Amino acid sequence: MTNILFAAGPDRWAVYEAPLRAALDGFGLDYALRCEAEPETVDYIVYAPDSEVRDFTPYTRLKAVLNLWAGVERITGNKTLTVPLARMVDEEGLTQGMLEYVTGHVLRHHLGMDRYIMNPDHRWDPVVPPLASERPVTVLGLGTLGTACAGALAGLGFPVSGWSRTPREVEGITCHHGPDGLTKALAGAEILVLLLPDTPATQDLMNRETLALLPRGACIVNPGRGPLIDDAALVEALDQGQVGHATLDVFRREPLPQDHPFWAHPGVTITPHVAADTRVPSASRVIAENIRRGEAGEPLLHLVDRAAGY
Amino acid sequence: MTNILFAAGPDRWAVYEAPLRAALDGFGLDYALRCEAEPETVDYIVYAPDSEVRDFTPYTRLKAVLNLWAGVERITGNKTLTVPLARMVDEEGLTQGMLEYVTGHVLRHHLGMDRYIMNPDHRWDPVVPPLASERPVTVLGLGTLGTACAGALAGLGFPVSGWSRTPREVEGITCHHGPDGLTKALAGAEILVLLLPDTPATQDLMNRETLALLPRGACIVNPGRGPLIDDAALVEALDQGQVGHATLDVFRREPLPQDHPFWAHPGVTITPHVAADTRVPSASRVIAENIRRGEAGEPLLHLVDRAAGY
Repeated sequence: MTNILFAAGPDRWAVYEAPLRAALDGFGLDYALRCEAEPETVDYIVYAPDSEVRDFTPYTRLKAVLNLWAGVERITGNKTLTVPLARMVDEEGLTQGMLEYVTGHVLRHHLGMDRYIMNPDHRWDPVVPPLASERPVTVLGLGTLGTACAGALAGLGFPVSGWSRTPREVEGITCHHGPDGLTKALAGAEILVLLLPDTPATQDLMNRETLALLPRGACIVNPGRGPLIDDAALVEALDQGQVGHATLDVFRREPLPQDHPFWAHPGVTITPHVAADTRVPSASRVIAENIRRGEAGEPLLHLVDRAAGY
Repeated sequence: MTNILFAAGPDRWAVYEAPLRAALDGFGLDYALRCEAEPETVDYIVYAPDSEVRDFTPYTRLKAVLNLWAGVERITGNKTLTVPLARMVDEEGLTQGMLEYVTGHVLRHHLGMDRYIMNPDHRWDPVVPPLASERPVTVLGLGTLGTACAGALAGLGFPVSGWSRTPREVEGITCHHGPDGLTKALAGAEILVLLLPDTPATQDLMNRETLALLPRGACIVNPGRGPLIDDAALVEALDQGQVGHATLDVFRREPLPQDHPFWAHPGVTITPHVAADTRVPSASRVIAENIRRGEAGEPLLHLVDRAAGY
């Protein structure tokens, strides 16, 4: 009997219980799935970053923590967590949803849609955009999400560059890495997509100096993590025309406080953390698959490298 | 010596002369390219629908008329034109530009972008859209443009249906045809893309009856031809919520008159005929290739079936 604790809150329990049971039943597992359990009986915890469980010490039999989200920055620093931690990589939900968001907003900026969506003066003022093949796009971060988005953009005809901390090779993408590579990746990037994890090394990566490396008027799409951008430097770059527009889905504080200058800035579009969301049926299958693997002695999928922080 | 008359106006002559010469030189043709010529000396006319040449009778030596645009509805009815007429099919410019416009605006409606782009009350109100795989899209018209757009949308994960007058088979697309097929193609189409030619058979194809076949709240993207839609029926369907939004790039009169109800309607986005435009370098190569073919006795590309009207 495998004991599974769902520690991601009662609201999500109501949504996830049935699909999780369906997925676990589909693997023929002998299990008990509960939203409350004695800590010393628990084999696996299905976890959300806002869970009440913060001290893992009493979970003496715990084999793994399975995060319902991709982001793990609120748990990687937890010293009481000594067992493997898996993040959610839900190809169908997270990756595909992110691909759609990024492709859509890159095309929005590429086509200059906003001038037609908001046109109070009813001006007939045709501006035919260049073809995608003449619009260089750079994706910072070549993990699962970044690679999928870069591939979709290249498939539509954009010349795509990518950047990652360590060297990567992705077919059809000009790949850069490391500090020197960042300068090359930003030069010429008319549209910049941020899909890096939130780590000490990536905080404020887009600051006054790096924003100045972009071509004048570049657009930024950030569906990655809020702390990747120095907010004040971005506002300054927008005011000076160095950045043409920023579409931001993630923020240091969410919901974004009403007094934050992003709200009123005409050069900022705020989407309320909707770029990618775990879809319940597919996420449930990912969780169940990792429990099946754990019980079969197979390596878990999507394990977090807690030293690197993602 | 092949005599070519550029009959598409002085403004375009200034733009096209050099790239056309470069393309013709590239084929090693012995030619004279002029924007004025004695009619009886002319072998080929490079044509635009707003050309001053309306009577082709004096052009006794004419071998073909090569249209700079995809749309030929203003010339197919010209009884004085008895030689072959070729339309512009500029893969790189027209087709790729259309693909980018259609993909961008379908994603815009799919993701519900407008509520975030225009958000004067600064509301943080997350609405996570379904995945593309749960959003059926239908493309009316499976010519070069429609097929390219349908393929790109299917590649992003949308379930795509297509409709054409005569039967077609396109890989990955559910194809319908004829009057009965139209009913099937419209049922369930949450986003409808119009890419049909303007012919007597397609005028007002989207009218009160056919708009009612769409699922409630469907979005329409029309980068095809203005007369495909009965304007009054569309406004009525928008007012009733039967159509959720319409993004229109083409109109019966262009520029769209300022007193047209589309301008002020909150459910309509007007783009000023920018969906696809002939790009000068690639269009010049297409024209030159057809002249090369004509001189070599090879069949011309993209000939218009004047009985069908496209």
